[in-house]
Amino acid sequence: MASTSPGYGITIRVEGSPDLQPVALITATITGAGATITALDVVESLLERVVIDVTCDTIDADHAQEINLALTAHKGLTVRKVSDRTFLLHLGGKLEVQSKVPLKTRDDLSRAYTPGVARICQAIVDDPADVRRLTMKRNTVAVVTDGSAVLGLGNIGPAAALPVMEGKAALFKRFADVDAWPVCLDTQDVDEIVRTVQLIAPVYGGINLEDISAPRCFEIEERLRELLDIPVFHDDQHGTAIVVLAALTNSLKLVNKKMNEITIVMSGAGAAGTAIARLLSKSGASKIIAFDKDGCVTAGFSGKISDAMKGADVFIGVSAPNVLTEEDVAGMAKGSIVFALANPDPEIDPVIARKYATVVATGRSDQPNQINNVLAFPGIFRGLLDAQAHKITDELLIAAAEAIASCVSESQLNASFIVPSVFDSQVVAKVAAAVKKSV
Amino acid sequence: MASTSPGYGITIRVEGSPDLQPVALITATITGAGATITALDVVESLLERVVIDVTCDTIDADHAQEINLALTAHKGLTVRKVSDRTFLLHLGGKLEVQSKVPLKTRDDLSRAYTPGVARICQAIVDDPADVRRLTMKRNTVAVVTDGSAVLGLGNIGPAAALPVMEGKAALFKRFADVDAWPVCLDTQDVDEIVRTVQLIAPVYGGINLEDISAPRCFEIEERLRELLDIPVFHDDQHGTAIVVLAALTNSLKLVNKKMNEITIVMSGAGAAGTAIARLLSKSGASKIIAFDKDGCVTAGFSGKISDAMKGADVFIGVSAPNVLTEEDVAGMAKGSIVFALANPDPEIDPVIARKYATVVATGRSDQPNQINNVLAFPGIFRGLLDAQAHKITDELLIAAAEAIASCVSESQLNASFIVPSVFDSQVVAKVAAAVKKSV
Repeated sequence: MASTSPGYGITIRVEGSPDLQPVALITATITGAGATITALDVVESLLERVVIDVTCDTIDADHAQEINLALTAHKGLTVRKVSDRTFLLHLGGKLEVQSKVPLKTRDDLSRAYTPGVARICQAIVDDPADVRRLTMKRNTVAVVTDGSAVLGLGNIGPAAALPVMEGKAALFKRFADVDAWPVCLDTQDVDEIVRTVQLIAPVYGGINLEDISAPRCFEIEERLRELLDIPVFHDDQHGTAIVVLAALTNSLKLVNKKMNEITIVMSGAGAAGTAIARLLSKSGASKIIAFDKDGCVTAGFSGKISDAMKGADVFIGVSAPNVLTEEDVAGMAKGSIVFALANPDPEIDPVIARKYATVVATGRSDQPNQINNVLAFPGIFRGLLDAQAHKITDELLIAAAEAIASCVSESQLNASFIVPSVFDSQVVAKVAAAVKKSV
Repeated sequence: MASTSPGYGITIRVEGSPDLQPVALITATITGAGATITALDVVESLLERVVIDVTCDTIDADHAQEINLALTAHKGLTVRKVSDRTFLLHLGGKLEVQSKVPLKTRDDLSRAYTPGVARICQAIVDDPADVRRLTMKRNTVAVVTDGSAVLGLGNIGPAAALPVMEGKAALFKRFADVDAWPVCLDTQDVDEIVRTVQLIAPVYGGINLEDISAPRCFEIEERLRELLDIPVFHDDQHGTAIVVLAALTNSLKLVNKKMNEITIVMSGAGAAGTAIARLLSKSGASKIIAFDKDGCVTAGFSGKISDAMKGADVFIGVSAPNVLTEEDVAGMAKGSIVFALANPDPEIDPVIARKYATVVATGRSDQPNQINNVLAFPGIFRGLLDAQAHKITDELLIAAAEAIASCVSESQLNASFIVPSVFDSQVVAKVAAAVKKSV
């Protein structure tokens, strides 16, 4: 499954003697070591030496180091410098705060700040609802984490989680023009998290909970929904559930099956798994057999996952690598659907799964059918903010899933295209419209 | 003291018959009613009617209404619409969050978000100090309030305080390229405020406390300084104190007096007053007699403010309108200095004060010598962030004041120019450099 990614892109400056034909040598060395060359620039070309900047995607940090060593191993080549493109991108952070109002003259200051701003404050005192009209609250979302369950990295704490929250905020702006702000909390105590979010809430029109471990995330979300008059959305739960429902809706069309007839086997009963099972039930799925790492968690079923897989129509994994065997997939019903979403290594190698299953989806960007939350959360919050929504209902989540599914037209729909591209601009608009209608 | 301000600017659309000479009539009416016309556009000019947009600064909301009525009173004029320019500016808020990294392609996403971002997180896990290098923390400040002492409005709470905090953040960006973010807390409990700021601190390189009432602000600042490894600065205290010290330093040059020889009378023992007295003491002032609304708070002096004013060299007011009488100022020592900083109405009318005092300063933008915190806080935080400072010392505050004072050259210094313009670009650079040197 190892494949190169721009997330592990490096730029290497290499010097060599012209009579060695360094371009050919470098290219062959890098390609031979398994990296993907994406750019090559000859920086300097003299009689005695050629200097070349070559940019390539590698598999991971160790692989990047291997590439470096493979080049260094050549007597005629000298590696001058290795730049990590991802680190360069993150230097100094990824977000900035901009003023939307001019501040060039003293008059500008008088309007945007004192004394003019006092009247704006007074207007909000007089009519508290005006805070949505006269402040940033209208378009602002908090991306809240305690750093307890970040990507595949686990409990890394609030500071180390910040790059992810910045990235999330950048995506909010990019895809839905939502102003999102990282709130990385230096506590993992449920009561403290709930109280802190409640106390900072006046600035925000919505709360996006992110990378908070289960089962704490359930209680935090539930309590905040009770306490706050703005919508609270845990993306790891509902974002994933929405996109899975959208993908499954389209997949079922391909295999001509109905939600209420199929048997679904699930692996993973954390935040995502729980929310997926709940949303699928709400959408008509009646036979769901769920497993966590200790075995079956569904009442009335005794047996291992391999038992449940026999004759099953759908497998949905949000758990760990290699949970399924080739035999498990081979034994599924005709027209089977496999969503192996563990990242970066799925529950089963999708190449193997595709030998038997009609539809295979993963969480990976280098495979078809990526189940990516970016399809959901920007449009969800665009709609919630525009509607000045106070809460989120299951109907709203289902409407969002239907909107995503509808972005793949009948003529486009096939086993390798069950969800739209994240760059399909109609997605945010359709999801936001569906959300607004459901509020 | 009533004067017009762009903070109370309105644009009025008026229609009139051409034979009435509406431009002349409108101009005369508005000017006669005491407003200041700043723009006039003829929007439509037909045989039967002329439509004019006239923009003018008024004194306050009531005065704006008077102008409207004065125009409406003319039989031949019809007021179609009154737009409040300050409200228009604030619609939808004043801040937005921008991504500094490109997010156009799938490769961009792979670097800024998953999977690439995981390596950035891991780097911070491996070396926690890297959070300053690889995230927004490097350049980000929280503007924290509980809305308990906002401008002259008092305890208006967190939501109504938001327009001020947004404005403050906009000034941070405008003057010092600092990314500042409003944190408006829905509590006025000292313990909760301290704990909340501590919990949200991982994202920030500094904390700017704002508009928190005394004496709670003292305890909050002190406890946060103990708890956090980033600088904590209460602008209402230290920002004001720094600019007052800078202004007094330059004023004393004009009257040829020394800090350790002068008698200073102060009115107001709140956040600003306390901090000013402290910083002046640290700078060598030894005779300070301070009053709050209940009388003298300085040990060893019994008497009223009028008693203290007899023969005093300096008055500094951060209290309320009309605390001083004309006689009080007349009775001061030769070469007296009056800083009447209550806003919007000073402790004494500066026009009267100038009859006797050599130097008069206020907090108003429509008077010379405005004591404006904008001279201090942007450069302070620019310097603190660049130095990755952990704490703030009195020496640092004094160095900042000296830097501000030094922006007025010997040839520029006169009784109407004791502090630089807020638009003087050398101010932030000099203050930041002084702060960096003092860390």
